Amino acid sequence: MNRLDIAVLPGDGIGVEVTDATLAVLRHVTERHGIGMRFTTLKAGAFAYQETGEAMSEEVFERAAQADAILLGAMGWPGIRMADGTEIAPQLDLRFRLGLYAGVRPIRAIPGLATVLANPRAAEIDLVIIRESTEGLFYSRDKGVVTGGFAEEILRITRPTTERLARFSFELARQRKKPGGGVTLVDKANVFRAFAYMRSIFEEVAIENRDIAFGSHYVDAMALDFVRRPWDFDVLPTENMFGDILSDLGAGLIGGMGFAPSADIGDAHAVFQPSHGTAPDIAGKGIANPTAMILSGAMMLDWLAVTRDGGQACRDAAAEIRAAVDKAFGAGLRTPDIGGPAGTKAVTDAVIEHLK
Amino acid sequence: MNRLDIAVLPGDGIGVEVTDATLAVLRHVTERHGIGMRFTTLKAGAFAYQETGEAMSEEVFERAAQADAILLGAMGWPGIRMADGTEIAPQLDLRFRLGLYAGVRPIRAIPGLATVLANPRAAEIDLVIIRESTEGLFYSRDKGVVTGGFAEEILRITRPTTERLARFSFELARQRKKPGGGVTLVDKANVFRAFAYMRSIFEEVAIENRDIAFGSHYVDAMALDFVRRPWDFDVLPTENMFGDILSDLGAGLIGGMGFAPSADIGDAHAVFQPSHGTAPDIAGKGIANPTAMILSGAMMLDWLAVTRDGGQACRDAAAEIRAAVDKAFGAGLRTPDIGGPAGTKAVTDAVIEHLK
Ligand SMILES: CC(C)[C@H](C(=O)O)[C@@H](O)C(=O)O
Ligand SMILES: CC(C)[C@H](C(=O)O)[C@@H](O)C(=O)O
Repeated sequence: MNRLDIAVLPGDGIGVEVTDATLAVLRHVTERHGIGMRFTTLKAGAFAYQETGEAMSEEVFERAAQADAILLGAMGWPGIRMADGTEIAPQLDLRFRLGLYAGVRPIRAIPGLATVLANPRAAEIDLVIIRESTEGLFYSRDKGVVTGGFAEEILRITRPTTERLARFSFELARQRKKPGGGVTLVDKANVFRAFAYMRSIFEEVAIENRDIAFGSHYVDAMALDFVRRPWDFDVLPTENMFGDILSDLGAGLIGGMGFAPSADIGDAHAVFQPSHGTAPDIAGKGIANPTAMILSGAMMLDWLAVTRDGGQACRDAAAEIRAAVDKAFGAGLRTPDIGGPAGTKAVTDAVIEHLK
Repeated sequence: MNRLDIAVLPGDGIGVEVTDATLAVLRHVTERHGIGMRFTTLKAGAFAYQETGEAMSEEVFERAAQADAILLGAMGWPGIRMADGTEIAPQLDLRFRLGLYAGVRPIRAIPGLATVLANPRAAEIDLVIIRESTEGLFYSRDKGVVTGGFAEEILRITRPTTERLARFSFELARQRKKPGGGVTLVDKANVFRAFAYMRSIFEEVAIENRDIAFGSHYVDAMALDFVRRPWDFDVLPTENMFGDILSDLGAGLIGGMGFAPSADIGDAHAVFQPSHGTAPDIAGKGIANPTAMILSGAMMLDWLAVTRDGGQACRDAAAEIRAAVDKAFGAGLRTPDIGGPAGTKAVTDAVIEHLK
C-alpha cells in the first residue's frame, strides 16, 4: 500500500483545535493498523484572507486537489468578509471546483447521550442527509444580482448532477442495509417545476434500483418529521439549501453540531470536515468538542478504503474510531456544549484510550 | 357596527370538516358578543378544479376580495394536479393576487399539552414566524424553466415588500411585549447577496424602531435553535421558502400541524387558515383536529378588531376562543393526532363549552 497523502486545512477559530485533536486520533489509529498516511497542513480561510488577500491561494488549491483526501477544520470569521458582505468560505469553493456533489451528513444518536427529543426512540436515530453541494440555490453564490429595488438569485438543478446524486444515494442505502430503510428524496415538487424535474430524474434512477425502497417527501413536512419520527428515515438526498437547513436541524437532535461529521464527495475528490463553524465565542479556550471532526476522520478512512488503496485496514480503523467515540461517551464523557467538563484534549485522550 | 362579511373557502378533504367546526365556534362567540358576522361559502380547490377546470373562478376570487376577511380550510389533493405536475393551490394565488406579504404563523405551546422536546422549558414556547408570502423563492411559482438538461427557479427579494415585512414585524413585536423579546430576521446573508440586501433593509427599518431589540440569524442555525432553545425567540420574519420550512418545524414542536394557526396579511386583505393540508388519509372520518383552524378564526377576530369596525368586542371574542382552547386541552381533551380519542365534533363541543 502506498502512502496516503492527506491535505489538512485547519482553517480558522476552533477549526485549528479540532484538527489537532483529529490528527492525534488518526496518527494513533493508522499507526496501529499499519496505514501509511502523510498529513500536509495548508493555509486557507478568513485569517489567510486577511493576511494575504486570498482566502485560498491557487497553490493551496492545487496541492489539496492532488492529495488523496482533504481534511478541513472550519473557516470563516465574523469581522472578515468579502467585498459583497458574504462570508469567507473556501470550503464552498472546494465543493464547486472539485465537483463534490454529495454532501454526506450522517445524523446518528451516540449511545447513552441525551437527545433533545422526549421520545426514547430518539436513541435509534440513524439517518444520512445527502446535501447536493454544487448547485441548487448555491449555484447562485457570487452571482446574485442586486439592483435599485430588488435582488435575485437563481436555483439551478441539472440532470447530470441529479442523476449522480440519485445513484450515490441508492448505492449508500444499499451499503447501509438499514431494516425498513431506503431513499427518500426531499423536495418541494408540489410548487416548483425544478423540483418536479428533480423528482422525475430520481424516479428514473429508482427504476434501475428496484432493490431499494424509494419515496419522496416535501421539505416542510420533512422538517416536521425530523422532530416527530426521525428514526423512520434512512438516506435523504436533497437540494443544497434544504440540505444545509436539515443537516443543522438533524445535528440539533443528537447533541448539536459538535457531534455532526460530514463528507463532501465527488467522483474523484473528497473533503471531510465537521458540520460546525469556527465558533469565535469559544475559540482558543481549549473547550471545543472535537467529536464531529474525529468522526469526519473516520468517514475519510471509509472513503479511502473504497477509492484509494486503503482496503480493509482503513475500514477497520474507521470502525474503531466510531466505536471508541461511542465507548468514551458511553462511559460518561461529557463536553461543554452538552453541559459537561471535558475539553478538546480530554475528548482526544478519551477516544485514543478507547481505541482497542 | 356594520355586519362583517366573511368569505369562507372550505376547500378539500379535512378543510371542509375543520371549517364546519370553526364556523360553529365563531357563530357561538360572535352571537354572545353581539358581533354581526355573515359567512358566505365559496367553492375553490382541487375538487373544484376537477369539476370545473378552474381551481378558483374569477367570480369566487372577486367575491373573496370584496369580503372583510377570508377564512380558508385547506386545498389540494394527491391525484389532482396542474399540467406541470405542481399542486392545485389557490391559497398561493390569494397570497400573491391580494398582496398578503405577511404570513403570520404563531407557534405557542398549549398549556398542559406534551411537546416533542425533553426540556420542560418547551412549555414556554411562544414565537411568531412571519413568512414573507408573495416573493422569495415562491416568486418563481409557475415561472420555473425546465429545458433539456436543467431547470431554474428565481428567488426574488424586493425593497418595498421587505420594508413592509420589516415594519409589520417590529409593530407585532411592539404589541406582543414579550419580555426579552424582539425581532430576529432569519436569512442566509453569509452566502447570498439577496439575503445580505434583505438584511440591510431590515437594519434600516430597525433604526426607526429602536425601542424593539433587533438581530439576525442564519436559517440553518435557526433550525437547530428551534430544537435547542425555541423559548428564546419572539418575532421571526423570514423569506417565503424558509418560513414554509420553519413553520412546519415549529408546529412539530408544539403538537403538530393540528395546533398551528396562520394568517396571511396584506395592507387591505387577509386570509386566515390552519397551517395544515387536506390530509387525504383521514378525510371524511370526522377525526380531524380543528384546533388550528379555530385558532385561525381567533386571529381573524383580532385582525378585524384593528382593521374593520370590529373593535373591542372582536378582541374579547378572540381572547375567549384562545382561552377556551387552552382550558379544553388543559382539562384533558386529546385529539387522534396526539394519540387521543377526541374527534372533530368532540373538540368543537369542548371548545364551545369552555367559552365562558
Ligand atoms: C458556512 C456556510 C457557508 C456553510 C454552508 O452554508 O454551506 C455551512 O453552513 C455548512 O453547512 O457547511
Ligand atoms: C400546500 C403548499 C403549497 C403550501 C406552501 O408551500 O405554501 C403549504 O405548505 C403552506 O405552508 O401553506
